[in-house]
Amino acid sequence: MSARSNRQWLLVSRPRGMPSLENFRLVERALPALEPGQVLVRHRFLSVDPYMRGRMNEAKSYAPPQPLDQVMGGGTVGEVLESRHQGFAAGDVVVGMGGWQEYSHAAPEASALRRIEPRAIPLSAYLGAVGMPGVTAWYGVTRIIAPKAGETVVVSAAAGAVGGIAGQLARRAGAHVVGIAGGAEKCRYVTGELGFAECIDYRAHADAAALAGALEAACPRGIDGAFENVGGLILDAVLMRANPFARIALCGLIAGYNGEPIPLAAPQAILVNRMRIEGFIISDHPALWPQALGELAGLVALGQLRYRESIARGIEAAPQALLDLLAGRNLGKQLVELTPR
Amino acid sequence: MSARSNRQWLLVSRPRGMPSLENFRLVERALPALEPGQVLVRHRFLSVDPYMRGRMNEAKSYAPPQPLDQVMGGGTVGEVLESRHQGFAAGDVVVGMGGWQEYSHAAPEASALRRIEPRAIPLSAYLGAVGMPGVTAWYGVTRIIAPKAGETVVVSAAAGAVGGIAGQLARRAGAHVVGIAGGAEKCRYVTGELGFAECIDYRAHADAAALAGALEAACPRGIDGAFENVGGLILDAVLMRANPFARIALCGLIAGYNGEPIPLAAPQAILVNRMRIEGFIISDHPALWPQALGELAGLVALGQLRYRESIARGIEAAPQALLDLLAGRNLGKQLVELTPR
Repeated sequence: MSARSNRQWLLVSRPRGMPSLENFRLVERALPALEPGQVLVRHRFLSVDPYMRGRMNEAKSYAPPQPLDQVMGGGTVGEVLESRHQGFAAGDVVVGMGGWQEYSHAAPEASALRRIEPRAIPLSAYLGAVGMPGVTAWYGVTRIIAPKAGETVVVSAAAGAVGGIAGQLARRAGAHVVGIAGGAEKCRYVTGELGFAECIDYRAHADAAALAGALEAACPRGIDGAFENVGGLILDAVLMRANPFARIALCGLIAGYNGEPIPLAAPQAILVNRMRIEGFIISDHPALWPQALGELAGLVALGQLRYRESIARGIEAAPQALLDLLAGRNLGKQLVELTPR
Repeated sequence: MSARSNRQWLLVSRPRGMPSLENFRLVERALPALEPGQVLVRHRFLSVDPYMRGRMNEAKSYAPPQPLDQVMGGGTVGEVLESRHQGFAAGDVVVGMGGWQEYSHAAPEASALRRIEPRAIPLSAYLGAVGMPGVTAWYGVTRIIAPKAGETVVVSAAAGAVGGIAGQLARRAGAHVVGIAGGAEKCRYVTGELGFAECIDYRAHADAAALAGALEAACPRGIDGAFENVGGLILDAVLMRANPFARIALCGLIAGYNGEPIPLAAPQAILVNRMRIEGFIISDHPALWPQALGELAGLVALGQLRYRESIARGIEAAPQALLDLLAGRNLGKQLVELTPR
């Protein structure tokens, strides 16, 4: 097992505005021998998620900034090659926060490693529908929006890893679910494959008023709940069509991730409609993960929860996969699949 | 009892921007004889409240618009002169929605009439600390902010009828309470009489960043809860200093009552800090009024809840009293006291 080398992506500079490939550097380092208590994991999939953009900034956000010149953090699934920890053995399949590298060698506690037993569930789903994005969707829908049968729920970034699950969960609760996504292809996926009642292509609407008009047509009974991933004009339009006592689960504000100003135009709607807007971060709720993961795993295994993946190949592809995600070029969960050398 | 005349204020036009006296007309009408089931009440105090500005608009708000050429609606306290309803008798002291007129003659159900038995509590308090404004403060503090001992709560329009009670209730819950008000006199009242730890004069600060700086000094541990009556720069500044899991009870947005745009500059704070912003209207929660009024009455009777009143004299003064309120010239609860002719 000696002389194995490990390629790693480091964040080497912080972007202003949209990140570029220059913000990252690929390095190759020899893997040190395992210390007692450590586990060596070979990664099969790296996760690429919108929250990573926030961590690239210096400024305080909900997660501490990604340190410069260190391996980019992120979710991983893989298999244990070697273990000096009694809880893990070679051959175990594991999910954790291994980061953008081919191997992780760390104490399992440091990378939140846990063993999984994939049977009816594909390995990659543990980074998507049966992982952090799925639990995020589950929390926002069940704990904040809590849709009642017959209510209308709008989901933005509906073709993304989180939005796609959120809308399906709301539909299972009996809601009329309308997606918002960028482009005709994504909208077809959202209605055709994910089963949303309608999907609005926000790129086809010039401003918040036009988008609100499209929402009015798609949501004839108004909006009772919204799973918001985007902000800006999309959130403005949703507020224009909100019903009394509407709930907004504020999961992301992609529209402002590169520093764009995204003022909320008319907060009066929050008062007039007695709305609740609640920001949340799924890592704040570890006690709920087992329940959420259990429910999501069951639905995926039964084929009752659908998703797609955009898969980039090889460790070299990771930064570009993130840039693609931030530009909205992905469909569903963005992953990097590593091939053993 | 015949030949009694009743002076009434009608809303005769809708304002654009700040209302003016021309929007109202005083008329004098003979009081008709009571029909069966009606009660004749002589008003002692008329309530003047910020929400009235919203009702002067045509547009949908949380309350239906005030109809043109009809008596301005509003809270009243007075005494029953004559009753043809078995639940009321001459001499009863009553609170209700009698409107801006000297007398109301109506079925008690139509004006939400209820008997009060003022002993240790001044009559006028039933329109303030032991009335709608008090219950509004109680709901926002106990049901939305729910401050824990040692947390910091900021209250805007702190010298007003609602804000003054809200801050005192938060202080009773053990919070460090900081007010925001317009002008040095109001700030002295808020700290000196109401017992807030500090009060910031927002007029002394040019923009949201300056106000946020003052909040930083007054709230060294950040802001855990806010009772928001104003919006605009004040809400922006509060968001800049909010702690994780902060709760904002959105009670009013005075800054936008005359149609001013009041965008919320950086909704990112809601997400980064996993905040909850909740708009509320106290009339949505009738089931809670008895508990709230009971607690407030006890505190007022014991002298543990302080308030002031700005009292205009005579029915003629009502519209100007509303204009004064909207211009921030009142201290505490704005009332009109009627003197029997």
